[in-house]
Amino acid sequence: MKLYTYFRSSAAYRVRIALNLKGIPYDAAPVHLLRNGGEQLSDAYRAVNPAMLLPALEDDGNVIGQSLAIIEYLEETQPQAPLLPSDPAGRARVRSLALTVAADTHPLGNLRVLKYLTGELAVPDDVKLSWQQHWLRTGMSALESLLATDPCTGRYSHGDAPTLADCCLVPQVFSARRFGVDLAPYPTIARIHAACNELPAFQQAHPAQQPDAE
Amino acid sequence: MKLYTYFRSSAAYRVRIALNLKGIPYDAAPVHLLRNGGEQLSDAYRAVNPAMLLPALEDDGNVIGQSLAIIEYLEETQPQAPLLPSDPAGRARVRSLALTVAADTHPLGNLRVLKYLTGELAVPDDVKLSWQQHWLRTGMSALESLLATDPCTGRYSHGDAPTLADCCLVPQVFSARRFGVDLAPYPTIARIHAACNELPAFQQAHPAQQPDAE
Repeated sequence: MKLYTYFRSSAAYRVRIALNLKGIPYDAAPVHLLRNGGEQLSDAYRAVNPAMLLPALEDDGNVIGQSLAIIEYLEETQPQAPLLPSDPAGRARVRSLALTVAADTHPLGNLRVLKYLTGELAVPDDVKLSWQQHWLRTGMSALESLLATDPCTGRYSHGDAPTLADCCLVPQVFSARRFGVDLAPYPTIARIHAACNELPAFQQAHPAQQPDAE
Repeated sequence: MKLYTYFRSSAAYRVRIALNLKGIPYDAAPVHLLRNGGEQLSDAYRAVNPAMLLPALEDDGNVIGQSLAIIEYLEETQPQAPLLPSDPAGRARVRSLALTVAADTHPLGNLRVLKYLTGELAVPDDVKLSWQQHWLRTGMSALESLLATDPCTGRYSHGDAPTLADCCLVPQVFSARRFGVDLAPYPTIARIHAACNELPAFQQAHPAQQPDAE
């Protein structure tokens, strides 16, 4: 199994956590998002993933893009250490929490969006930072409400074992801290983040632990 | 089953298609995204969905947010007219296509993002339209590449029966057309869109057919 990854990519970080939680060995194929104008835009990578985004997983000759689709694939093909609960309502809740990060929060702070802001819209750096912080806070605030108001939240986002929701939560907190967002208004997120990071699977997936870390 | 919906919401439109394809009757509970400063931000709706976003599905006392989580829930609880293929690689491909729309394309043209552009960033209307068109084209271009280069693409996005990918594709094309994006560079998307819209399930989910259409 081969994972096209970049140490700081939030979406690749999610998949690394899932692979580690399931104990699946993989080869990391680093793709540098900044070098050479973005290696994900190269002809070589386009041949792997025509959507030209990270991460992508190669398994048995198939290439899968999109972090959540990759994790669902891992869940279906390697069911050990399940990342989704067994009941449909619980599965829906976990997927909904994951999408609150992956669809509502993360895309707005993506590198290509920030480039458009500073390029086409000629936005100065402090306004760009406000944009990043605004969408991080909006997303974290929604996630906090969903977690804090629901008795299904346990030691982790859903009950007492890590799930797909935690694979998304932890990288999002990493981004939030990196861009100066204070976690104090999100005590449930902060508590779950700390619990996750006690586990080796999360520690070893951290950007700083990757072969391509800078 | 009750669907909190808004006629023009792309994410609600996806769920309406899925419900229709599966032949599941539902009550539509319209939430107006513009009226009264946005009814999704009201205390009444916050009590339903703390994330304050549409759509949300109420079933058996559970409330599920996030269109893709809702459709996966429908797939698991009402397996008739399956919206995912049976093989893991095919399921991964369909989910990946769906996320190319739902995570990479749609969030950047969301109402709240456009409000931030014209409000906080004081962007004029023509620059806002360029933003919308830029991200619609970027997303459609990625989707076209994924569809055009893969032999699994059939009459629909994956083979010859409609899937979750088509539930996402059709509302995205509706948005693209609404904001003046020419479909000529995306012949595969245009062809699949036309095939889908021959089906009553898609026709009846169209914004113009909703009880709250304006």
